[in-house]
Amino acid sequence: MADAAFAHDIEAALADIAGAVERALEVLLPLGDGPERRVHEAMRYACLGGGKRLRPFLTMSAAWLLGAPDARSVRVAAALEMIHGYSLVHDDLPAMDDDTLRRGRPTCHIAFDEATAILAGDGLLTLAFEVLAAPATHPDGAVRADLVALVAAAAGAAGMVGGQMIDTAAAEQRLDEAGVRRLQAMKTGALITAACEAGAVVAGAASAPRAALRAFGARLGAAFQIIDDVLDASGNAAKMGKAVGKDRDAGKATLVGVLGLEGARAAALAEADAALAHLDAFGPDAARLRDITRFVVEREH
Amino acid sequence: MADAAFAHDIEAALADIAGAVERALEVLLPLGDGPERRVHEAMRYACLGGGKRLRPFLTMSAAWLLGAPDARSVRVAAALEMIHGYSLVHDDLPAMDDDTLRRGRPTCHIAFDEATAILAGDGLLTLAFEVLAAPATHPDGAVRADLVALVAAAAGAAGMVGGQMIDTAAAEQRLDEAGVRRLQAMKTGALITAACEAGAVVAGAASAPRAALRAFGARLGAAFQIIDDVLDASGNAAKMGKAVGKDRDAGKATLVGVLGLEGARAAALAEADAALAHLDAFGPDAARLRDITRFVVEREH
Repeated sequence: MADAAFAHDIEAALADIAGAVERALEVLLPLGDGPERRVHEAMRYACLGGGKRLRPFLTMSAAWLLGAPDARSVRVAAALEMIHGYSLVHDDLPAMDDDTLRRGRPTCHIAFDEATAILAGDGLLTLAFEVLAAPATHPDGAVRADLVALVAAAAGAAGMVGGQMIDTAAAEQRLDEAGVRRLQAMKTGALITAACEAGAVVAGAASAPRAALRAFGARLGAAFQIIDDVLDASGNAAKMGKAVGKDRDAGKATLVGVLGLEGARAAALAEADAALAHLDAFGPDAARLRDITRFVVEREH
Repeated sequence: MADAAFAHDIEAALADIAGAVERALEVLLPLGDGPERRVHEAMRYACLGGGKRLRPFLTMSAAWLLGAPDARSVRVAAALEMIHGYSLVHDDLPAMDDDTLRRGRPTCHIAFDEATAILAGDGLLTLAFEVLAAPATHPDGAVRADLVALVAAAAGAAGMVGGQMIDTAAAEQRLDEAGVRRLQAMKTGALITAACEAGAVVAGAASAPRAALRAFGARLGAAFQIIDDVLDASGNAAKMGKAVGKDRDAGKATLVGVLGLEGARAAALAEADAALAHLDAFGPDAARLRDITRFVVEREH
């Protein structure tokens, strides 16, 4: 019963934030009536109406914890979701992972076409930085520039883009455990870490809570990706809303491949424990971040 | 003789700035030794060792005119060149313009592969914003955020990305003169305009000179693109360093198609005159910007 109540509460909290972010994205994403409208539609297709909105949840929960108004943090959350959406659109392309199904719907290049999908990803990535840099995000320009710098560092060649580069070539590389962990810290962990840290930055946090949330995000991101791989290896396609078993088939580097299913699950739980330890200084107000940590390792999709 | 001396002077000035930007890019572009190194190499391939560096010339000349130190403006110039480089890499992809030759060398997806080229473009776009947002670009965070916002607006769905979307579909659309001009203002004009305006911003310019440089850039960008189309229709591949005649073959919308070769050339000269008029308030110090305007319409490649 306690577990059912927990699941109900965290799913309600996720849905709350998903609703707020969806409304923000509706307004922030363009929809012109010129001949370029097709790329606007593809950008909206990639971002609206789906996804757990984990990164927005982390940003808004961290910002709330440190006293930032939702009207600011929701813009940062929407920007992170644009970057997450762009990364999925580009990763799904035929030249990359060649996926046709995402969140139970055709991927962007299937629903539109490859050129439009490439441009939609480019447009989302660019818009994310435009939103972060806009005065409505924070009155202090130094905070806005800080947000851009930290998100760009996480999304770029030293983070997500670099991780995807390794992942694309991983079949040829046979990574060991350290190599897989580094790949995942770049490919998924960096943006999840940035989501937590950005919540602190938009709240004008001091360096100690900012560092704690950054460290929390890094561990949580690791737990999230390991569980993703566990679900891919053991889950079913209907619950996941995308093809499963593809990692193994594609020779992708995962901790399941290195440690086995149970070893990977234990590694995820260890990461989650380490994440929770970084929240100790925040006391009971960090309950939402504790709940999402538990949710991440207990989820079935 | 006057013309030969002019060409010599402006080409020397372009080479000076190209050298400064090349050195800045060398330092700013990553080159790690992890398994992600391939994307770093592709990013460098796309940005180093080629191009006229027109956008950097505009940024640094505008910044110099308004008193900004080169150490700041060269970072802005390098960021703009990263965005220009990313746009060429993505535009050249098989799903887009499917070009195999650029600046006399194989395009990025030919020299590497398609996945790496997509990621290299993503990495360059992201790094550009990281560079603009970094404290080394300007000590005032509001200036840095302003730079990010204006460059993102120019590069995104309302600017370059939107223009490329129209261009990709133009063969089906039969644009009239106004439609072609709008497409070109988005696809090429927006980033050239941003290059001029960013020079003013990094110099901390007041709104009047900033607006004048923005207006100058918009006209110069139009002149540049029209001449590009004229050269594509009449030039030769060796001078251009890329395939020519492709616009017509691909049914691309150009002013040459709408106005004919001589009509397009006259339209470019009119844009250049309008550009020059916006420089009147700056007096003799704007000589470099006047020279580049003349160079843009007289160039043969």
